[in-house]
Amino acid sequence: MATTCNATTVTNKQVILRDYVTGFPKESDLIFTDSTIDLKIPEGSKTVLVKNLYLSCDPYMRIRMGIPDPGTAALAPPYIPGEPIYGFSVSKVIDSGHPDYKKGDLLWGLVGWGEYSLITPDFSHYKIQHTDVPLSYYTGLLGMPGMTAYAGFYEICSPKKGETVFVSAASGAVGQLVGQFAKIMGCYVVGSAGSNEKVDLLKNKFGFDDAFNYKEEKDLNVALKRCFPEGIDIYFENVGGKMLDAVLLNMKLHGRIAVCGMISQYNLEDQEGVHNLANVIYKRIRIQGFVVSDYFDKHLKFLDFVLPYIREGKITYVEDIVEGLENGPSALLGLFHGKNVGKQLILVAPE
Amino acid sequence: MATTCNATTVTNKQVILRDYVTGFPKESDLIFTDSTIDLKIPEGSKTVLVKNLYLSCDPYMRIRMGIPDPGTAALAPPYIPGEPIYGFSVSKVIDSGHPDYKKGDLLWGLVGWGEYSLITPDFSHYKIQHTDVPLSYYTGLLGMPGMTAYAGFYEICSPKKGETVFVSAASGAVGQLVGQFAKIMGCYVVGSAGSNEKVDLLKNKFGFDDAFNYKEEKDLNVALKRCFPEGIDIYFENVGGKMLDAVLLNMKLHGRIAVCGMISQYNLEDQEGVHNLANVIYKRIRIQGFVVSDYFDKHLKFLDFVLPYIREGKITYVEDIVEGLENGPSALLGLFHGKNVGKQLILVAPE
Repeated sequence: MATTCNATTVTNKQVILRDYVTGFPKESDLIFTDSTIDLKIPEGSKTVLVKNLYLSCDPYMRIRMGIPDPGTAALAPPYIPGEPIYGFSVSKVIDSGHPDYKKGDLLWGLVGWGEYSLITPDFSHYKIQHTDVPLSYYTGLLGMPGMTAYAGFYEICSPKKGETVFVSAASGAVGQLVGQFAKIMGCYVVGSAGSNEKVDLLKNKFGFDDAFNYKEEKDLNVALKRCFPEGIDIYFENVGGKMLDAVLLNMKLHGRIAVCGMISQYNLEDQEGVHNLANVIYKRIRIQGFVVSDYFDKHLKFLDFVLPYIREGKITYVEDIVEGLENGPSALLGLFHGKNVGKQLILVAPE
Repeated sequence: MATTCNATTVTNKQVILRDYVTGFPKESDLIFTDSTIDLKIPEGSKTVLVKNLYLSCDPYMRIRMGIPDPGTAALAPPYIPGEPIYGFSVSKVIDSGHPDYKKGDLLWGLVGWGEYSLITPDFSHYKIQHTDVPLSYYTGLLGMPGMTAYAGFYEICSPKKGETVFVSAASGAVGQLVGQFAKIMGCYVVGSAGSNEKVDLLKNKFGFDDAFNYKEEKDLNVALKRCFPEGIDIYFENVGGKMLDAVLLNMKLHGRIAVCGMISQYNLEDQEGVHNLANVIYKRIRIQGFVVSDYFDKHLKFLDFVLPYIREGKITYVEDIVEGLENGPSALLGLFHGKNVGKQLILVAPE
């Protein structure tokens, strides 16, 4: 019996994981498929059909591309070869069988990468209530990366006014916010980034007290000693590897390291060794890993905190927007080479 | 003018650091001197002259033998070449200018290694009030190592009944107590040690649920998976290096690592790299370094807690006692080759 094709069926371009990735991902690891999708939710279904306006490119996605492993599975299940990769989006509801969502609603949350996605709303999906700010912010400043910076800085770092804060990958989706939060708290903040353009952003747009281009420093220990002659109270860790080793040498007594990410390590088959961990004892350092999904219940509190700062122009946000789903894979892969300047996202369809 | 030598002057054998140590310390790094000491405190002095009964050999002493370094200085100042090394003792007061101590009192605390020591009492010196237990215990179970196990386990590990606990260097001065504290709390406890004799002690004397000889395991990851099929909630870290790497692969979600020491690393000029730190993120692990001197204010609380268990025979303690100050250096150095079985100490003079 032939499948009947009704008037609400459209083609849907999706981004599929070809196979598990080892080493740096290549564009050929992500392939496009055109399938069809019915824009009408079947009677009785609790699912929601959305059109994706923006898709977010985030470093953790590399971890989900790898071969299944009990360690990384504790973060999130791996992507399935032959199926779409998942990421955060800003999307518009086309049809809904779910009582919390109706046609025309805007939401942000996890979707399969495509023009359209069928979702079963869960703790990772939030209706967008405030539209006086750029919608794209819900992939960054007001979405998962913003929550990451908020939870990581305020819940994990135990910051106090006057403390010294170092942020790596500081112009990225999370880092630029951590720096601004730390300035609001009255801390001294230094960031590292991988180009002079990014260093300029840190100093002149985000208000960091100092910044350096790690690619131009011969010795990261020397760079950190120059920026923090008295040492570092708080390190917001986004990169891992050599930077972490240099930071350990420069931490103050009772310092705190919030481990948000280790982007320098995700594409290495053999992880770099970190050699200076004995400083954890000498300096009574606390290293705390965290994953933002554990803090999603604080999302409304976060919006109450951050929206006034945005409206008053006291928090700013830099986005790197590429247009078209067809440019999504290269944008995502660019993260691992530091090509993005600010939060990387994809404009899939006009608002 | 010749020095006058009064009736209270005696010779005093001391153990002197020849020079800063790199690599494994050798016996020739520690030299003996005979000097003279006046057993009478001069009028007006607040110092205390003690005769040392026991001297304690502890791994952290290696750190103080090294070349001065801002990192290790955060633990304790380095020893000074040409001067006695310092360590914890059990000592008897010979003469005192200090209001808190009188002749005949027993105390434990930091002294220069010698038959006699002149001390200026500070937060590291405690009068011994309970003498119904072996006096030597004040170098171990009731002294600095006991406080280390107590503060590290109860204050840093946040233990809960039913959790799984792994202790490395588990038959050592601190480890044997951590295991017993964990059993009292109702945890499942496994220890590692470096000989079958020590493994036997762990299982049959200290009540560990399981134990293994790390030198006989081809793959520490496999050994830990065998002992902890569901993973580790708490790791009490005494060794560092490869063991820490294997533990990181086996930690549970929200696991805690109390970093007490890294004895495997103290004698290496280039520290081993730890490669599996990204698990800190995936599993939201907390790694917390600590130094016991931050917890010395809890010493009376600790005694109130632990003395009843000792008197009831519910906590036991194994000591490795060598006789004579002249055998002190080899006993101390033996720690770094795992020669000691239980708490290593030196009987300097009979009680």
